[in-house]
Amino acid sequence: MTSSRPNIVFMLLDNLGFGDPGCYGGGVLRMAPTPRIDALASQGLRLTNFNVEHACTPTRAALMTGRLPIRSGCDRVRIGVKNGLAPWEYTMANMLSDVGYSTAIYGKWHLGNVPDRHPTALGFDEWYGIQDSTDPVFDFFNADRGIFVRETKVWEGRAGSPANETADYNPENRALMDGEITDRACRYIEEQARTGSPFFLYLPFTMIHHPALPHPDFAGVSGNGPFADCMYEVDHYTGRVIDAIDAAGIGDDTIVVWASDNGPPSHGTLGPQGDPGPFRGCLGTAYEGQMRVPCIIRWPKRIAPGRVSNDIVSILDFYGTFAAIVGGKVPTDRAMDSVDITPLLDGGASPREWVIAFVGNTLAAIKWHQYKVHYVEYGTTPGKRYKIDLEFPQLYNVAADPKEEWDIFGTNLWISEVTHGIVHAYRESVKRFPHVPLGGDGPAPVRER
Amino acid sequence: MTSSRPNIVFMLLDNLGFGDPGCYGGGVLRMAPTPRIDALASQGLRLTNFNVEHACTPTRAALMTGRLPIRSGCDRVRIGVKNGLAPWEYTMANMLSDVGYSTAIYGKWHLGNVPDRHPTALGFDEWYGIQDSTDPVFDFFNADRGIFVRETKVWEGRAGSPANETADYNPENRALMDGEITDRACRYIEEQARTGSPFFLYLPFTMIHHPALPHPDFAGVSGNGPFADCMYEVDHYTGRVIDAIDAAGIGDDTIVVWASDNGPPSHGTLGPQGDPGPFRGCLGTAYEGQMRVPCIIRWPKRIAPGRVSNDIVSILDFYGTFAAIVGGKVPTDRAMDSVDITPLLDGGASPREWVIAFVGNTLAAIKWHQYKVHYVEYGTTPGKRYKIDLEFPQLYNVAADPKEEWDIFGTNLWISEVTHGIVHAYRESVKRFPHVPLGGDGPAPVRER
Repeated sequence: MTSSRPNIVFMLLDNLGFGDPGCYGGGVLRMAPTPRIDALASQGLRLTNFNVEHACTPTRAALMTGRLPIRSGCDRVRIGVKNGLAPWEYTMANMLSDVGYSTAIYGKWHLGNVPDRHPTALGFDEWYGIQDSTDPVFDFFNADRGIFVRETKVWEGRAGSPANETADYNPENRALMDGEITDRACRYIEEQARTGSPFFLYLPFTMIHHPALPHPDFAGVSGNGPFADCMYEVDHYTGRVIDAIDAAGIGDDTIVVWASDNGPPSHGTLGPQGDPGPFRGCLGTAYEGQMRVPCIIRWPKRIAPGRVSNDIVSILDFYGTFAAIVGGKVPTDRAMDSVDITPLLDGGASPREWVIAFVGNTLAAIKWHQYKVHYVEYGTTPGKRYKIDLEFPQLYNVAADPKEEWDIFGTNLWISEVTHGIVHAYRESVKRFPHVPLGGDGPAPVRER
Repeated sequence: MTSSRPNIVFMLLDNLGFGDPGCYGGGVLRMAPTPRIDALASQGLRLTNFNVEHACTPTRAALMTGRLPIRSGCDRVRIGVKNGLAPWEYTMANMLSDVGYSTAIYGKWHLGNVPDRHPTALGFDEWYGIQDSTDPVFDFFNADRGIFVRETKVWEGRAGSPANETADYNPENRALMDGEITDRACRYIEEQARTGSPFFLYLPFTMIHHPALPHPDFAGVSGNGPFADCMYEVDHYTGRVIDAIDAAGIGDDTIVVWASDNGPPSHGTLGPQGDPGPFRGCLGTAYEGQMRVPCIIRWPKRIAPGRVSNDIVSILDFYGTFAAIVGGKVPTDRAMDSVDITPLLDGGASPREWVIAFVGNTLAAIKWHQYKVHYVEYGTTPGKRYKIDLEFPQLYNVAADPKEEWDIFGTNLWISEVTHGIVHAYRESVKRFPHVPLGGDGPAPVRER
């Protein structure tokens, strides 16, 4: 297929679990129907084996670079210290800019808290949103009860000059944030459609991350508390973005992706949040409840409607897939982990056969077809969180046993040959292209001649 | 609404979990797509809060009588001793017969192992299938490994004379059983449709109960073992029954119900079986993973297609609902627990607000709207099964917390007023209509004048 220039609108939800949207088994069952998300799924490809990294920063690093986050120094969420992508990373926004796309991000970045690591320094023409995560609002929120206040800001910027802090990211603005992201997204889509040039709009929403503080228009709508109210809100914003695309007459050749960044956090810390659906585990583990999240891809020009696929896809893969579609450049001077999944979009199978799961810098698990090997065990019962290294790996057939409860390693030792091959190839790649140290402070790669 | 005479075809699966069919989040995710079951759901009403009893016999007793199984002496599975419904119970088959229906059951009865408790003694015109469960096949299956053999038979009978044993229910016949049930069902539907008189066809399939022994035509089709193969088979038989109904030209005014009898068994006993989807728990507990199972109702003449409802419905309710539809008699000389849910079928809300969950004769839990109170805690981790009485009840919001992990009793003591009212009403009913002793050996109720 020759290269084309579809618009790309990428909606990334925060901490939304596999089991939250209606089309993934949540919705009405959670007293929060999601008709717009479900409709999007019916118009496109719904993935049931879409794999992300173990937390916000790593997943966003994987998406933006097509590289395992441990390679770019982004293998965990770092608070209060310099963090994020090195300025020399070649992000998805860089790659799309270089083939003529306009680029914008409205929402949560979480890949750099210093000027040369802001999105407008890493390929985006413009940015509105937050630099880090929504947790500081939570601290702020508890201020009158005497709890530590960590101030955080809303940012705005354009490429070519430093971004500015424009408002406090406090509980009030947190409740308004995703509405504002949506307003700006709809305006941007309308304006860009008029130009006739292709655009990449990245919308990392701040919901459904705790604290669940719904917009005043949505407070109480679910009858089951603020989390369910926020799910109504998420569905509404999804619908507004889709409506803006379709109203602008660009629906046919716009790739819409709707996905989450990681599994829901443990109930043990926060009370009920998102739900991992049929899977075990939570954010910060390597169980399927963390690794697998919703992902819907709509592109009427090329993707048949109403399809559901359980083929393995990774958040890493959008980089190489978009590059293949638009004829963008994929760096060869660094380790790349992205797989071009256009064969899947075209109705075939995913070329990806396995994913490797790091939790921080721990190689925690490898999934190969329906088999999954764990090297670390995580306790996920509320109030009983633990992590232990395993003397022998555990093996689960996640298609037969989605809750990863029935260890079959002892009777399937053959799997080690598969996993050893995967680990060996990873280690060889690290010898050739060493990791950037944690925090993203590493030398630029030596360009190949 | 005046009474009508729709045909009724009731397919009851055995041990199939909430998460197994595709339209409930399983299917392709389990390497066992279920296109025919999913299509049935899209043509009718799919329930996401359909509640059953804790095991095979209790659920079947509830379905047949509209009475809590503890009232009819059927509160548990009894093996090797006289069991089942007392001959004076007025089953759904009796009720439908009395208003002119032809009645047949092909499949697993599990409500009586002596002649006057066989289905043909309790309202059915004809029967083909098994008297008890499929477990004895498992023992038989292990015979060459020196494990106890318990012989069991395939039965056949017509009302008016005792049923006969016609074959061994051994591993070979177990693999063929549901194909034979389906063949007979299709013939019956075709024949009955020609008569123009209404019929009630009860199809309690023997799948997906262990041992998963697929029909030779289905062995290996899934590429993920016999359980997934059997899911292919279940979907195929579902499609054949639907095709027979539609081919006979009676689809519009035939009520098709497709449901399971209880949650999947614990992995800890058998290895991976069915999956409870987003819920916790397994057969023999009172968690949602046991209580909630798939239920699809298709009736084009009266039920709008493609609807999904999370309203509470119980397996008890078909009795009163069918009685309301056909103008059948509901006994007044015994305690009845069935709620007429025709308002739900007609597009409104379910009139049922709560369910009471017994495990054996233990009142284990009460669900009221989205709140669920447990009086007993069950450990469901493989190899760590236990049961403990609770000093204080546990309360979960199952819409916010489907895995019942976050106890909110301490901050919601108001719930006790609700549950006390429900328990009080139940106790008062027992004073008026004492339970039939376990095994179903009780005196006939004194007829009211």
